[in-house]
Amino acid sequence: MGRALTVINALGLMLVVFSISYVLPVLTSLIYHDDTLTDFLLAMLWTAGTGVLLWISTRRYRGELSIRHGYLLVVAMWTAMPAVATFPLLLVIDGLSFTDAYFETMSGITTTGATVLTGLDHLPPAINLWRHELNWLGGMGIIVLAVAVLPLLGIGGRQLFKAETPGPMKDSALTPRITETARNLWLVYAGITLACILSLKLAGMNWLDAVCHAFAAMGLGGFSTHDASVGYFDSPAIEFVLIVFMLLAAMNFATHFLAWRGRSLRIYLHDAEAVATVSLILGSCLGIALFLWWQGVYPGFWTALRHASFNLVSMATDCGFASADFNQWPIFAPMWMLFLSCITASSGSTGGGIKMIRTLVLVKQAGREFLLLLHPAAINPMKIGGQVVANNIVFAVLGFIFLYFVSVATLTFALLISGLDFISSFSAVLACINNAGPGLGVVGPAGNFGVLSDFQTWICTAAMLIGRLEIFTILILFTPAFWKR
Amino acid sequence: MGRALTVINALGLMLVVFSISYVLPVLTSLIYHDDTLTDFLLAMLWTAGTGVLLWISTRRYRGELSIRHGYLLVVAMWTAMPAVATFPLLLVIDGLSFTDAYFETMSGITTTGATVLTGLDHLPPAINLWRHELNWLGGMGIIVLAVAVLPLLGIGGRQLFKAETPGPMKDSALTPRITETARNLWLVYAGITLACILSLKLAGMNWLDAVCHAFAAMGLGGFSTHDASVGYFDSPAIEFVLIVFMLLAAMNFATHFLAWRGRSLRIYLHDAEAVATVSLILGSCLGIALFLWWQGVYPGFWTALRHASFNLVSMATDCGFASADFNQWPIFAPMWMLFLSCITASSGSTGGGIKMIRTLVLVKQAGREFLLLLHPAAINPMKIGGQVVANNIVFAVLGFIFLYFVSVATLTFALLISGLDFISSFSAVLACINNAGPGLGVVGPAGNFGVLSDFQTWICTAAMLIGRLEIFTILILFTPAFWKR
Ligand SMILES: [K+]
Ligand SMILES: [K+]
Repeated sequence: MGRALTVINALGLMLVVFSISYVLPVLTSLIYHDDTLTDFLLAMLWTAGTGVLLWISTRRYRGELSIRHGYLLVVAMWTAMPAVATFPLLLVIDGLSFTDAYFETMSGITTTGATVLTGLDHLPPAINLWRHELNWLGGMGIIVLAVAVLPLLGIGGRQLFKAETPGPMKDSALTPRITETARNLWLVYAGITLACILSLKLAGMNWLDAVCHAFAAMGLGGFSTHDASVGYFDSPAIEFVLIVFMLLAAMNFATHFLAWRGRSLRIYLHDAEAVATVSLILGSCLGIALFLWWQGVYPGFWTALRHASFNLVSMATDCGFASADFNQWPIFAPMWMLFLSCITASSGSTGGGIKMIRTLVLVKQAGREFLLLLHPAAINPMKIGGQVVANNIVFAVLGFIFLYFVSVATLTFALLISGLDFISSFSAVLACINNAGPGLGVVGPAGNFGVLSDFQTWICTAAMLIGRLEIFTILILFTPAFWKR
Repeated sequence: MGRALTVINALGLMLVVFSISYVLPVLTSLIYHDDTLTDFLLAMLWTAGTGVLLWISTRRYRGELSIRHGYLLVVAMWTAMPAVATFPLLLVIDGLSFTDAYFETMSGITTTGATVLTGLDHLPPAINLWRHELNWLGGMGIIVLAVAVLPLLGIGGRQLFKAETPGPMKDSALTPRITETARNLWLVYAGITLACILSLKLAGMNWLDAVCHAFAAMGLGGFSTHDASVGYFDSPAIEFVLIVFMLLAAMNFATHFLAWRGRSLRIYLHDAEAVATVSLILGSCLGIALFLWWQGVYPGFWTALRHASFNLVSMATDCGFASADFNQWPIFAPMWMLFLSCITASSGSTGGGIKMIRTLVLVKQAGREFLLLLHPAAINPMKIGGQVVANNIVFAVLGFIFLYFVSVATLTFALLISGLDFISSFSAVLACINNAGPGLGVVGPAGNFGVLSDFQTWICTAAMLIGRLEIFTILILFTPAFWKR
């Protein structure tokens, strides 16, 4: 009981810190005079107040957390922050239910980018900025969580990533290292975001759109200020800029940090994930472009290549921008994009899904099994990027992937029972659990998660959270062993 | 080169033995005077002749086979036997292409039971008997392969099944044991088939239908002599009999043998797979019946239970009979049935898919991972049915399941590229790789694989073979290591 109150104490502090993030929409409201100033100030006050209340009422229980309570805190943070983040949405948008508002903020903070809102073009600028800031903050949060926190908890092969991160991020002493690692990552993330804002402005966006889309691109969130998403701009320059920054955001930010510190691009070649991801995406862009051209979806190869590249990179990196209604393409193309969204993003990036490192472990393990069938006595340790991967880590990775599929199947069946068709159900679950954004069918890029019933909306909300917290973090709370003294 | 000729020598002998199986359709043709006598005698002659030719021309290379050439022989047998089995179909049915004929015989011999033929009710009795005999022979072949041969090759965790089989099947000395094991299994299989024929006759079928459907039920093949499948009879008694024998065929035949030898039903309770399979199927029947009743598909609960039970058991055991067009049921129900077809059948049964033992290993491994997250230093060996499962076997099982999913995804994408819709593609691949039979969409229980293009037909043919030979056996031929000296 005392330990649970320690979790609440830490959560209170987090909420106070989180309330600072309302400064940006408050400034936006001041600049654009969009009549949302008091709403955002109220939301800020309520968030800070809730935090202070939790913090003060449990201050006697301040202290260190066990691993077990580490899980509780992570889950509590990622459910409480979207809850308080709904305040401005509920205050400003008439008739928005809490279910839909919570879906929207969860979608923002998990960097899923699926939306239940329509008429985005006419939302007050501060509201749009707030949605996009959630994308950006969520991206930051997940990088720190993935690079600094989850490896210590030992989630689904995360130890591997820790071992792979050279230099200052390698150490395992908890508190001081988390702080230093987080600061370094934060600097890299903020720096690349700034470059993205400026590039988008140069490519022709206004400042508000540039900031919003840079936030959404770097967090691989994929929210847009327009119902037509990036298709609204119809600009190859903007699409090109976004492709570059989406690819950067889908790589491990620790690699960016090392490349920056060492002033060397060669670092990227030593990142097995980055190499595999970029090769797979480039090959797929070319293949899908040829397919769309062959099928006559676009009259010329170059037009096909432009639309294939932007939408494929967007889905494969789990960003979720759209420049065309790829739900209308021959089904092979969007299915391949959905498949890529499951496996492509790097660990330590802002993308979701299984992650490229786990995909590599899986492929190498299959190769090992073949060799063992032919030479039963062979000793053949797994190596990735020159490093041996221990068997217990392979097990953790395989366990992760199994639970990933179990989660996908269970949530899909839940949507099927509720009466949704198969393609919409399956793609909605994949799009949410991968934190990608648009699915196919009724939740396709031209559609919207607003058509879902409340039950279906909560299933999708759960899928986003399960995916973002690497599955184990959530599901472990439902095991009897977790609650055993 | 010499070794490859040894494989061909053994294959020749197999074909000579296989030609004996034409005796049954020849007898049928004599009884029913259906004008196919010369066709079957010709087919028998050609098959035996081909076999003798292969055998004699390579007789200098007779000898023992290495593990590597064991794979080659297994794959050669399962591709050559359906090829020669097409002879009577091509001779009797006008306008049948080799592609379709090979699909049909492969479907028979892999006990998939998907068909490209329509007008089954008007086929000559001997042709129908031949199709059903392929189901039965394929079932026999796969039991021997699974219980006696594959464990020795070490395919995807098969060692586990060997270790679990007590008594005469436990030993690992190859040749004498295979013979003895095969004879015991053959007796059990033939005995239960005889009981099934008599039960179906008593339940109201004529002799030809009783024999054909008993063959299809015991091999879990699912061919029927009627386009409407078992729905043609509209008889609860027949459906009940078939449910019982499908469940028996979906259990490990080694368990049947032990129960028969020990005169004890208690043996079944010690078979972890049988217990899990029956519990899962019973629970699912009840759940789907309630779902169909709730959705108003059937007016009363008992009607819903009757149709849910027969079609669900048929799909879950990978048999593939149908008594209703379950493709028209609300999508949750057929999707759940398709899901069960992936995991439910026991090892050493005539069913297909992942098999219940591997499902159990997967679930236990996930539990181990959770415990390890909470207690990183815990030592927690996996136990199934009281026996410890070694880590290398867990790896083999996980590797198998990974390749299963890779195969499903690859083949589905191949069908999508060819222009087939997603539900038909996905369900056709699952139905074929699980050797279940009907899928959904255009290949649903009221549809037919005859609508597929040649390319699509070959993809499905490949899926049946890959699934039947436990994936590794086929895919290993495509690894460079296999062909390295
Ligand atoms: K996203
Ligand atoms: K079947």
